[in-house]
Amino acid sequence: MRTVSLPNEILRVGIIGAGYWGPNIIRNFNEAPGAEPAAVADLQDERLAPIRKRYPAIRTTTDHREILSDPSIDAVAIATPISTHRPLAEEALAAGKHVLIEKPLAGSGTDAEAIVRAAEKAGKTLMVGHTFVYNPAVTAIRKILERGDLGRVHYIDSQRVNLGLHQFDFNVLWDLGPHDVSITLYWLGEEPVWVQCTGGSFVQEDIEDVVWLTMAFPSGAIAHAHLSWLAPGKMRTMTVIGSKKMAVYDDVTSVEKVKIFDQGVERLEPDELRRAYRAGDILSPRVAVTEALQVEVQHFIDCIRTGKKPISDGAAGLRVVRVLEAGIRSLRSGGARVAYQAEPEAVAAS
Amino acid sequence: MRTVSLPNEILRVGIIGAGYWGPNIIRNFNEAPGAEPAAVADLQDERLAPIRKRYPAIRTTTDHREILSDPSIDAVAIATPISTHRPLAEEALAAGKHVLIEKPLAGSGTDAEAIVRAAEKAGKTLMVGHTFVYNPAVTAIRKILERGDLGRVHYIDSQRVNLGLHQFDFNVLWDLGPHDVSITLYWLGEEPVWVQCTGGSFVQEDIEDVVWLTMAFPSGAIAHAHLSWLAPGKMRTMTVIGSKKMAVYDDVTSVEKVKIFDQGVERLEPDELRRAYRAGDILSPRVAVTEALQVEVQHFIDCIRTGKKPISDGAAGLRVVRVLEAGIRSLRSGGARVAYQAEPEAVAAS
Amino acid sequence: MRTVSLPNEILRVGIIGAGYWGPNIIRNFNEAPGAEPAAVADLQDERLAPIRKRYPAIRTTTDHREILSDPSIDAVAIATPISTHRPLAEEALAAGKHVLIEKPLAGSGTDAEAIVRAAEKAGKTLMVGHTFVYNPAVTAIRKILERGDLGRVHYIDSQRVNLGLHQFDFNVLWDLGPHDVSITLYWLGEEPVWVQCTGGSFVQEDIEDVVWLTMAFPSGAIAHAHLSWLAPGKMRTMTVIGSKKMAVYDDVTSVEKVKIFDQGVERLEPDELRRAYRAGDILSPRVAVTEALQVEVQHFIDCIRTGKKPISDGAAGLRVVRVLEAGIRSLRSGGARVAYQAEPEAVAAS
Amino acid sequence: MRTVSLPNEILRVGIIGAGYWGPNIIRNFNEAPGAEPAAVADLQDERLAPIRKRYPAIRTTTDHREILSDPSIDAVAIATPISTHRPLAEEALAAGKHVLIEKPLAGSGTDAEAIVRAAEKAGKTLMVGHTFVYNPAVTAIRKILERGDLGRVHYIDSQRVNLGLHQFDFNVLWDLGPHDVSITLYWLGEEPVWVQCTGGSFVQEDIEDVVWLTMAFPSGAIAHAHLSWLAPGKMRTMTVIGSKKMAVYDDVTSVEKVKIFDQGVERLEPDELRRAYRAGDILSPRVAVTEALQVEVQHFIDCIRTGKKPISDGAAGLRVVRVLEAGIRSLRSGGARVAYQAEPEAVAAS
Repeated sequence: MRTVSLPNEILRVGIIGAGYWGPNIIRNFNEAPGAEPAAVADLQDERLAPIRKRYPAIRTTTDHREILSDPSIDAVAIATPISTHRPLAEEALAAGKHVLIEKPLAGSGTDAEAIVRAAEKAGKTLMVGHTFVYNPAVTAIRKILERGDLGRVHYIDSQRVNLGLHQFDFNVLWDLGPHDVSITLYWLGEEPVWVQCTGGSFVQEDIEDVVWLTMAFPSGAIAHAHLSWLAPGKMRTMTVIGSKKMAVYDDVTSVEKVKIFDQGVERLEPDELRRAYRAGDILSPRVAVTEALQVEVQHFIDCIRTGKKPISDGAAGLRVVRVLEAGIRSLRSGGARVAYQAEPEAVAAS
Repeated sequence: MRTVSLPNEILRVGIIGAGYWGPNIIRNFNEAPGAEPAAVADLQDERLAPIRKRYPAIRTTTDHREILSDPSIDAVAIATPISTHRPLAEEALAAGKHVLIEKPLAGSGTDAEAIVRAAEKAGKTLMVGHTFVYNPAVTAIRKILERGDLGRVHYIDSQRVNLGLHQFDFNVLWDLGPHDVSITLYWLGEEPVWVQCTGGSFVQEDIEDVVWLTMAFPSGAIAHAHLSWLAPGKMRTMTVIGSKKMAVYDDVTSVEKVKIFDQGVERLEPDELRRAYRAGDILSPRVAVTEALQVEVQHFIDCIRTGKKPISDGAAGLRVVRVLEAGIRSLRSGGARVAYQAEPEAVAAS
Repeated sequence: MRTVSLPNEILRVGIIGAGYWGPNIIRNFNEAPGAEPAAVADLQDERLAPIRKRYPAIRTTTDHREILSDPSIDAVAIATPISTHRPLAEEALAAGKHVLIEKPLAGSGTDAEAIVRAAEKAGKTLMVGHTFVYNPAVTAIRKILERGDLGRVHYIDSQRVNLGLHQFDFNVLWDLGPHDVSITLYWLGEEPVWVQCTGGSFVQEDIEDVVWLTMAFPSGAIAHAHLSWLAPGKMRTMTVIGSKKMAVYDDVTSVEKVKIFDQGVERLEPDELRRAYRAGDILSPRVAVTEALQVEVQHFIDCIRTGKKPISDGAAGLRVVRVLEAGIRSLRSGGARVAYQAEPEAVAAS
Repeated sequence: MRTVSLPNEILRVGIIGAGYWGPNIIRNFNEAPGAEPAAVADLQDERLAPIRKRYPAIRTTTDHREILSDPSIDAVAIATPISTHRPLAEEALAAGKHVLIEKPLAGSGTDAEAIVRAAEKAGKTLMVGHTFVYNPAVTAIRKILERGDLGRVHYIDSQRVNLGLHQFDFNVLWDLGPHDVSITLYWLGEEPVWVQCTGGSFVQEDIEDVVWLTMAFPSGAIAHAHLSWLAPGKMRTMTVIGSKKMAVYDDVTSVEKVKIFDQGVERLEPDELRRAYRAGDILSPRVAVTEALQVEVQHFIDCIRTGKKPISDGAAGLRVVRVLEAGIRSLRSGGARVAYQAEPEAVAAS
């Protein structure tokens, strides 16, 4: 753990990127105790106008370097297109800023690794915006898994589909995949052995709008996700099949987001062709309705203050990028299994 | 079309196999106008006792040859373990009986082909019990597809999962897969180019209780199915994504089994980063509640009388077996894509 | 408790009435250990034909007196039109038979009372077919209430609606009302103070196809039910609001028929305009899937053998009739509150 | 229609009351083309602080007379406690302002009538914030009814329940009732003949937290609503049973808010004890997702500019208050039917 010399004041944050997600980050830093959004940069001034209107106290600029060169700013949140993540993050870390960067960490393992190294070198907090690992329902299932309530995880099946929002420069695996991969790795606490991915490009050429992603883990667990921009309705359902119980996490419902099914195989006797199944109670534990981004932003502030490692630190972000890269390789090679490359020791130890 | 010389009387049917499915077949032949269940054979007499009690007029026997040698019996329905399908079907056809055989047609393409050839040689009707293609909801979607309402099919995603019923001698692909494969081939009217399958054996060694099956078609369509004996609840949902509309077939609900979504991509302009989606009406057409097996049994009777080819004829049953075989090969070779072997001309022409 | 002199053999039951419900009763006595359906009577022989076909061992007749005069028959189940309940029940009890009679016990309190007295005089078991009080979900909620888990019951709201089945000689209150009334009285363990009923006759003149029934109880609890033959879908939902928790019983779903909501008012401080609500876990306890009629039939057999009083004994059936009668009076008098007449002591003590 | 002399500029609106609903009104006037929120008044300055922070351009004051005396302000929106509606509205109208007033218009028919007369006298637009009649789903059903698609309306059943928010000075009828009453009157286009109401006060003495409200109409239609602050979940469902079709409006779902069921009674022949029901397609028409309050605010602006009568004008608001008053009288007199007093001609003609 690093020595932390942050003064006991308000953490001043600069936000780079005011497109789709940026305003949410601004709003949450605005409401978070112990921090304030001090400045916002975006290349397009028309995106800054509504921010000025809503938050007159926040400085806006079309040049992010104004933020990086401002010594009163402690940290930056980067919510820009993926291809800019590495240069911006390296620049910010070199300028001595703590960095919260939107998911995915980078568009390649090489870039992601470079960012992780830059944070190491700068001795600053690097956190990736894998918002879902801060979602109270996801955290609830993680705790249930840690307690062993579900037993050994057999498999996880996920449906993450809706109509739109087609991206033009990357496919649905890069768009929706970071959620499933980050949640799954967080729940299982292990890295996959291999990754497999199949899909189709139905609306735009060479940009998959539907993929099926499979990950196999050392423990024997398999995770499978259906990711799509082409579906009749919005689904955000992850089902965890354990040896003892089963759990369903449905992020679309407003009630009963988590359900624990006391169900399983009771007895299988091939010799006598007998089987029995247990179908017991179904419990939907109370889950807080706190916005995940609020928890994430608070965690970022806490990690900066205490020097502790974020749950979604650079290493976690790098693992997600590695899985996605392996998925893309599988997709480009006819759905073959692609070995997941564990992080080199130097990085893993970061 | 063959010459048909069936007398204008009641079709007399013998049923071989009185296990799980047999009694349903008996009941439906009992209620079908124009046919009657004349005799039932099963190796275990204790399975015949309740049939004798319920249908005193039906002759029962532990020796199926009694049925085959009875000249007053016109047709047999075979509902026995898969491994016995070929010998029983060949025997029945050789004895001049029309044959309705439970799905899957056989445990291998070789056996399935042999049965198809035997039916050809005997000049008798051969039909496979792919009950779902006689389900009114499945037929409704087939008609919608034929009318072109959905446009070009992009992909089909299926969830066919529940807790149990684990089989001891074959895996979930052979157990539940015939449904998805037969429905998909019926809807699309084409045979796949390749098949891919991944899964896990979590409860019994080497017998997969969950698989994910992918089929790619010449038209560009992809079909993907999640089949599992390990799930918290029963799901029987098939989603068809077309270029114009989308359809959902949910066999578990008692109402709104079919829904047509007038939804799709309206405009995608990568140059200007613009997209628009159409989200119109949702229509749930009225679907008859007729039991699929009743329709199937009636179709069998009609085909025998008229000489016309059943929807689920031997060739259709063979195609399903070929897909399943390819799926097993993929499963055994690390999830590689396995080319689907189209039927040899001789068989295809049957 | 009466002396019981039933020989330790199979209880032989005669069924009078083979219309809609009779065949279910026959089937359940056929499957119940310790009893057998010995004879069935119906005025229309065409209703007896399918019974003869299905159960060749059962004697059928168009004259119920053949059953009543048969000394080998121990008990009768009466499933005939309501107007015939009293004469048939009195005749059967006079002939020394135990009687299971379909709900409602009779079409008037006077008739219901007469039946109860006849059973008293005969010293035979009289049970009313309020099937729902034998439904495992209803029993589960009764137990939850007995344990005090829900606290004091504030109110019960019920939706019992569907499209059809219009009756021609009595309204929806007499048709569907017995279910809500019998369940509510069973759950609360008390008789109402007053009854109120409003409704409309939209399809047939003077025969209400929708009513809203309200019952107020000495404990302060209110029960309200919406009963209708005119609704877009089938609903069978009863919600119990307690001072500590809330419960929902949904008889239409195949899973999670019972749900317990750990929800309620935590704090209300009018002085400071403050309120807080508790929204805790939701539990769906495992409920057996046993058919309610099977439990009912077994209970009837047990009560005859042991001499114990059935849960839905004559007094319970009489209470339901009294509530319905009060409801009709309210309906006919502009929805006024009508006092519920408690049973005279003589009857209540039966 | 009155002569309108509004300059062709931006309509300047003052908002009185910045409690629960006020901020929504401010936000919608802020976003509405052709209008702007110019000033906000509230007795409690701490409610004004966040408004100043968010909208620096809006003047705030703790004295509403500052708004009324400002000649540059054209209209006021009143979102204060019910008891203040009459004095504030009279004052505002006397000052020559157009008035949008939150529902219910007033706490008594007398007060509501006085407001309507004051608006008549001032010749200004008076509109009541019955937001739901501007809800696109409610409007969609109104159009369906106007087209006669449902046939003659038999009855409307409504469930408007949730846990909380208990009020301390008025009961659930005054709190939730305005929604059901305003929607029902808007759909049916008629005023009730009588009103009946039953309920219970379970948490606070003499303040009902659950009521069942019934209204009967000259056409023969009946409307029934279950209103409750004590329920396990939020329900906002209104079912309309017509002689030809049925409709369900569910405001809680995010999809399929409106469903039209092509269902009904096909044939009822008591003589032959025959009945048939039609169960056809179910259609969920596309409904815009526009916020109802946005439509309402725009309608207010349009009515001021054009002089046309608002859909929820003073007379409509008065009708709702009359129904609620009748409901309260019924509640206080043991649930008796209370005649609805139609508006005196002078007012009705306004």
